[in-house]
Amino acid sequence: MNTPQQIAEIFERYIALVNMPDEPQRLYAPIRYSLAEGGKRMRPVLTMLAYNIYADDIQRVLPAAAAVEVFHNFTLLHDDIMDNAMVRRSRPSVFAKWGSNVAILSGDVMMIEAYRHLQGVEAKFLPAVFERFNTMAAQVCEGQQYDMDFETQAKVAVAEYMNMIELKTAALLSGAVTIGAILAGASEEDVQKLYKFATEVGIAFQLQDDLLDSYGDEQLGKKIGGDILEGKKTYLMIISLSHATEAQREVLRTTHLNKKLSDEQKIAAVKEVYDAIGAKQMTEQQISVRISRALAILDTLSVPAERLGYMKSYVESLVGRKK
Amino acid sequence: MNTPQQIAEIFERYIALVNMPDEPQRLYAPIRYSLAEGGKRMRPVLTMLAYNIYADDIQRVLPAAAAVEVFHNFTLLHDDIMDNAMVRRSRPSVFAKWGSNVAILSGDVMMIEAYRHLQGVEAKFLPAVFERFNTMAAQVCEGQQYDMDFETQAKVAVAEYMNMIELKTAALLSGAVTIGAILAGASEEDVQKLYKFATEVGIAFQLQDDLLDSYGDEQLGKKIGGDILEGKKTYLMIISLSHATEAQREVLRTTHLNKKLSDEQKIAAVKEVYDAIGAKQMTEQQISVRISRALAILDTLSVPAERLGYMKSYVESLVGRKK
Repeated sequence: MNTPQQIAEIFERYIALVNMPDEPQRLYAPIRYSLAEGGKRMRPVLTMLAYNIYADDIQRVLPAAAAVEVFHNFTLLHDDIMDNAMVRRSRPSVFAKWGSNVAILSGDVMMIEAYRHLQGVEAKFLPAVFERFNTMAAQVCEGQQYDMDFETQAKVAVAEYMNMIELKTAALLSGAVTIGAILAGASEEDVQKLYKFATEVGIAFQLQDDLLDSYGDEQLGKKIGGDILEGKKTYLMIISLSHATEAQREVLRTTHLNKKLSDEQKIAAVKEVYDAIGAKQMTEQQISVRISRALAILDTLSVPAERLGYMKSYVESLVGRKK
Repeated sequence: MNTPQQIAEIFERYIALVNMPDEPQRLYAPIRYSLAEGGKRMRPVLTMLAYNIYADDIQRVLPAAAAVEVFHNFTLLHDDIMDNAMVRRSRPSVFAKWGSNVAILSGDVMMIEAYRHLQGVEAKFLPAVFERFNTMAAQVCEGQQYDMDFETQAKVAVAEYMNMIELKTAALLSGAVTIGAILAGASEEDVQKLYKFATEVGIAFQLQDDLLDSYGDEQLGKKIGGDILEGKKTYLMIISLSHATEAQREVLRTTHLNKKLSDEQKIAAVKEVYDAIGAKQMTEQQISVRISRALAILDTLSVPAERLGYMKSYVESLVGRKK
């Protein structure tokens, strides 16, 4: 078995060697650019860790892991156009660097590239993996649509928000994990369990992301409060709205639009309401519940406990429980 | 065997019955809208005609034919954003009706929908069909990128233009035809020949499209001269530039920018140069050569001549040789 760290390195070497055409230059250069600064490689690592629960020859799962990672990066590329986002992983986004048309078309080719990687899946597994991949892909887009719909929707219920992140964030993780398990020959029952496991992890991961945007460590280089300044409907905002008094609700809804306040004042005003309601604790509680459920599901898989250690520690590291 | 007309009707009934989710509404409504007014269904008809050369049970090829058609409609959806095109098939484009963000994301899901249709391909053919489909898809995007590059490129050689339309237009036709043939169990040799056949047809079809924009029949409801007013680098423009005197070149390059001229005057000025050079005849000649080559390739396939009649007449109808 391989540690998450080893797996990430194996994946990094694999993706660096992927051949892509040189021409047309404006089509393929943005794809290279997107894939070069890769971030955490969380999704392919999950694919490979899931595979590694059942089988040791993890080289076999690399094409599928690459398909998931390239698809993920494609979604970022198109999301950045839709969100008008100029920065991605501390660099200019493709949208900012090359403009909207290049970002649209490069994104399209990137999705096709993701499917091309699936060509490396053995024929006997291809129908099942292809079906899972397509479902995952459509879910991610559905989640992005709901997320955009929420921007103009006056009221978003907690259940609607949970459904949205289950699609937008968790579907990629459950897709990544189940594809790894299918390729390793896991039983249908275990694949189903891993789907639920990864869904819980994905939800916890998104809640953690929402939490860090308002309560993260500035020293990690990320600016705090971006979601608050955009008036974004995060988990913190939505549970706070559902518990707020009329006066607090007014603060939550209007502060980001108040031109008389500085950014710092806006962030402080909203966080004061969050704190009064206990939004941070409620979010942490929810993350904790989801991760505990996820880990409990792992224990019901039809494998010896020692096959699960790396997956468990990796998942805990994702939500900051361990390093 | 089925006539092209019968095949188009079978396809139309099939695509009308395809299920799609209702929600999120803003994601799936534009896809329904795009697929409902379908145009000629040229590509799926070609897939089914190619299949029908070798086998009679054309129901089997419907999922693959749908994949090609949905992919084609996806490209139109994204092209309309990039080209800022407000009208598609005499109706508002998705981009005009719903805006850029909806068009981007609906287009993405539409590409995924195209792949979903491929799930209907029998497992034993899936790897080969999947590979062909991915190659076709990437080529179409490469062609679109070259087409956009040409807009800002001072000089475009005839060979560059031919390469562009071979990717942007012909790749979809060669993809459509070869996938039909593969699924019908055609030999590798015949599949290769059909690839060349469909490439010639695709090039002829694009040249015909370029020709009709400047010399078409206004009574068919299409406005003449749109390409000239946009200063578009069509085949007519590119061969004219390659044969023009310095004075003619000036007219070809600058007329569409001349604010003193009415649209009618611009069109007349450019067509005067086209006529002096013989651009219409050169284009017709090129179409004729391509179609003759295509039909000659068909005659070398390993099937009795009577299997080829419908494909031949359909291809001739595409370039207006027959109705």
